[in-house]
Amino acid sequence: MVTPLLTDLYQFTMAYAYWKAGKHLDRAVFDLYFRKNPFGGEFTIFGGLEECIRFIANFKITEDEIKFLRSVMPTCEDGFFEYLSSIDCSDVEVYAIHEGYVVFPKVPLMRIEGPVAVVQLLETPFLSLVNYASLVTTNAARHRLVAGKSKNLLEFGLRRAQGPDGGISASRYSYMGGFDATSNVAAGRLFGIPIRGTHSHAFVSSFMGLDEITDKALISSDGSSKCEDFVSLVQNWLIKIKDSSSLGGTFGETNQSELAAFTSYALAFPNSFLALVDTYDVMRSGVPNFCAVALALNDMGYKAVGIRLDSGDLAYQSAETRKFFHAIEKDFGIVGFGQMNITASNDLNEETIDALNKQGHEVDAFGIGTYLVTCYAQAALGCVFKLVEINKQPRIKLSEDVTKVSIPCKKKCYRLYGKEGYPLVDIMTGEDEPGPKIGERLLCRHPFIESKRAYVVPQHVEELLKCYWPGNSSNSREELPSLYEIRSRCIQHLDWMRPDHMRRLNPTPYKVSVTAKLYDFIHFLWLNEAPVGELQ
Amino acid sequence: MVTPLLTDLYQFTMAYAYWKAGKHLDRAVFDLYFRKNPFGGEFTIFGGLEECIRFIANFKITEDEIKFLRSVMPTCEDGFFEYLSSIDCSDVEVYAIHEGYVVFPKVPLMRIEGPVAVVQLLETPFLSLVNYASLVTTNAARHRLVAGKSKNLLEFGLRRAQGPDGGISASRYSYMGGFDATSNVAAGRLFGIPIRGTHSHAFVSSFMGLDEITDKALISSDGSSKCEDFVSLVQNWLIKIKDSSSLGGTFGETNQSELAAFTSYALAFPNSFLALVDTYDVMRSGVPNFCAVALALNDMGYKAVGIRLDSGDLAYQSAETRKFFHAIEKDFGIVGFGQMNITASNDLNEETIDALNKQGHEVDAFGIGTYLVTCYAQAALGCVFKLVEINKQPRIKLSEDVTKVSIPCKKKCYRLYGKEGYPLVDIMTGEDEPGPKIGERLLCRHPFIESKRAYVVPQHVEELLKCYWPGNSSNSREELPSLYEIRSRCIQHLDWMRPDHMRRLNPTPYKVSVTAKLYDFIHFLWLNEAPVGELQ
Repeated sequence: MVTPLLTDLYQFTMAYAYWKAGKHLDRAVFDLYFRKNPFGGEFTIFGGLEECIRFIANFKITEDEIKFLRSVMPTCEDGFFEYLSSIDCSDVEVYAIHEGYVVFPKVPLMRIEGPVAVVQLLETPFLSLVNYASLVTTNAARHRLVAGKSKNLLEFGLRRAQGPDGGISASRYSYMGGFDATSNVAAGRLFGIPIRGTHSHAFVSSFMGLDEITDKALISSDGSSKCEDFVSLVQNWLIKIKDSSSLGGTFGETNQSELAAFTSYALAFPNSFLALVDTYDVMRSGVPNFCAVALALNDMGYKAVGIRLDSGDLAYQSAETRKFFHAIEKDFGIVGFGQMNITASNDLNEETIDALNKQGHEVDAFGIGTYLVTCYAQAALGCVFKLVEINKQPRIKLSEDVTKVSIPCKKKCYRLYGKEGYPLVDIMTGEDEPGPKIGERLLCRHPFIESKRAYVVPQHVEELLKCYWPGNSSNSREELPSLYEIRSRCIQHLDWMRPDHMRRLNPTPYKVSVTAKLYDFIHFLWLNEAPVGELQ
Repeated sequence: MVTPLLTDLYQFTMAYAYWKAGKHLDRAVFDLYFRKNPFGGEFTIFGGLEECIRFIANFKITEDEIKFLRSVMPTCEDGFFEYLSSIDCSDVEVYAIHEGYVVFPKVPLMRIEGPVAVVQLLETPFLSLVNYASLVTTNAARHRLVAGKSKNLLEFGLRRAQGPDGGISASRYSYMGGFDATSNVAAGRLFGIPIRGTHSHAFVSSFMGLDEITDKALISSDGSSKCEDFVSLVQNWLIKIKDSSSLGGTFGETNQSELAAFTSYALAFPNSFLALVDTYDVMRSGVPNFCAVALALNDMGYKAVGIRLDSGDLAYQSAETRKFFHAIEKDFGIVGFGQMNITASNDLNEETIDALNKQGHEVDAFGIGTYLVTCYAQAALGCVFKLVEINKQPRIKLSEDVTKVSIPCKKKCYRLYGKEGYPLVDIMTGEDEPGPKIGERLLCRHPFIESKRAYVVPQHVEELLKCYWPGNSSNSREELPSLYEIRSRCIQHLDWMRPDHMRRLNPTPYKVSVTAKLYDFIHFLWLNEAPVGELQ
């Protein structure tokens, strides 16, 4: 689906104007970066690199596509379309930060060099591949940070994602950002993400009563025995619970269609019984019905997994459910029943998980959909793709808004680490400047604000931009790691950050800087290009 | 990409549990609907139907997919997978409101009937196809309402869309909702949407000066003459503007790389010259440079198109630019120059267009990206898919939140029109109830709130749910109209609505109701299913 035509028309009209002016082969350098961290935070995770590299590896405009372009741009000369059908990305170089890294505003995530007309054609697809990927990966990582490492995080967003492929990308990058599993079968198949899911409310309400269950037999877990009437076994357990010392009187008649649905589901999946308990009433029907089925399964040597809550007060309900489970463990001596898994999944997001944490809850796993995949709190990252050099001439894009001024020059980027092992600052240098050295004091300047600068003595220096597509250069090419490896790297990198950059409330901005030499050059170029105003 | 595996795992685990219980062929009816209009408004546009119908027309699980499902559900019996590989949608019936219609909460957009296991497998893909499509169509329609009919609306969102396919869907449904064109070449090719685009800031800053232009010749529009040095013609015009009676002294030296870029672009596209004028300074460089090139083109018989503003105060800049254009028209007697097109495109949305309208502006066309395609103001619609009947037995889904209780029964839905021709109310009836009749007084009840009811004497009655997939029924099938036809229908329907439902500030809710008979039945079923609480 991601073909060279998945781009803005102006990339092709510009290509024609370049070609017509004989400038199409001018060697250009573009930076892809973002200007502001999303979600009110002070960090971002870089996602989408692999998809960009695969895109340029296959970049070729087909005859059919050329034919369509001719119809859209009927005044363009034949020679241009011949040129278009000849191009590929063999002469393009791509340097990028590793996918899954923690990244910051203004520092190029990717530096793309090549013939200006070709690189310009990459702008829209690259932005389209990186923007949402980085946004949702960051969103997932933020959910992981607030939920904590011990909780299971499940991505349930396919139905609310922005289109089918939005759903697939959401699953992929939620996993990258630290989720454990997805409900999306296609994403599981494509990317090897663990898949989870049990049943919905419709399954529960599709049953009318226990007499619908005709095949009532269940063979025990070890195959040694057979219960001919599992339904009666469940019913007996329900009576025992109702009459038990701790739970007697806490509930009356439970919903029988729900009980039938649970029993049926257990007969189908005795090894992985997990029930959605809020179709009628959690504490007066769903949880007692679940426990009756779980105890019957226990008799047959199976261990139920747990329950899912999908509405109401999750803090209260999870705590009440946990008490119920503990009472079962105590009254019937079923070791471990108190630890039964509780999954929650009702319009959850960072805020609600944070609120649940503050109230106290007994949830073991969170299923998160809409707010995760649509990035509801901030639906776009706003990556840009700016020309910084052409034919070795540095270029700058001015703006009345200082935050929108681009940082000119083909640059190198370094991450400097301090004594405690945390990253301290990212610094950009001109391409030919010597890189920062371990133990050597270096002045780091804010690119635009004169007064903001600091000396740093790095204990470790990491060059950030690695060669992912060497083009005709002799640089060796970085391998594309697996999704699982990128995910592990992302989790590790989040751990390495100083906690005050990562906290939800008033996080400390991470410093992004330029060398003194680059600072001076930026401001020389800026003054040079900006017209002097005249007040009248 | 939209295959049967693009679904939540629980649809397959439920299918197995149904199959295992011998219930998989039970005839079920599901309603697909939403609960609340988006963007603080009181209307929604239905989009995504065609994609749903194409999906079920091709619904078939391949051998490879079955193999994957076996690996995910290793405890399931072989017979189930044989069943899965046999299913298609030949026994499914789909009734739907026409795509592009104005629709309201609680009224089913689609009613899907068929074997419960199969229909359940359609839930996630259908929701995934309808949710975003309807949301972005509605968003586009809202932008059209605030911009007014005379403005050109251009969708520029591909780079900020949620993934590549999000971009394609956004272009398709923005057009459906009333946009005029897109920048997305692939969407233009797939759906026949008009495509627009000129050049970016990078194009402007890629030029260093006029000496870069080597081929300076331009043949006149009618082919009768040739200007050997178009660059000098442009430079001469710039001097004339600078010395003109109205404009002399309003600007000094313009940026020469910008002038070179504009001249180059005009040489490439003399028939459609439109320039982005804010790379350096709109009034002191961009607009004068544009006018010099436009006047030179005029000498050669070409008519420039206009300018694009992409930053700053758009109300002020567009007004100043318009004054400049009028001054050119007056000083040089170029008839029509004052009406030159002004396009604006800087992070625009409904609010900013509304604010521009209030301030007064001279913008002719709006290019809208991020806020349109990500539906930034509300990133999800929240359509649901609820079981309302199985084996002819009505089913209800309860919830502590009344707005989440489903309306049971297989239903028919009607739109009733009043004397002035406006739609007055949508009403749902049981399947076997007689439909509303023209001129006959009918009681319309709110489905949940006892006190809300009204008598209506409809002047026109429209049955809303049409047969789009007859399955084994004898109903005839509605044709799928073209995107252009759906767009026209959408624009027309928006016109037909009473204006107070459509206004931005405090719109009047449109009434959605049930018949007295259906009301009574809902509340009977509700009481029947809900357990009675016991306060302790």
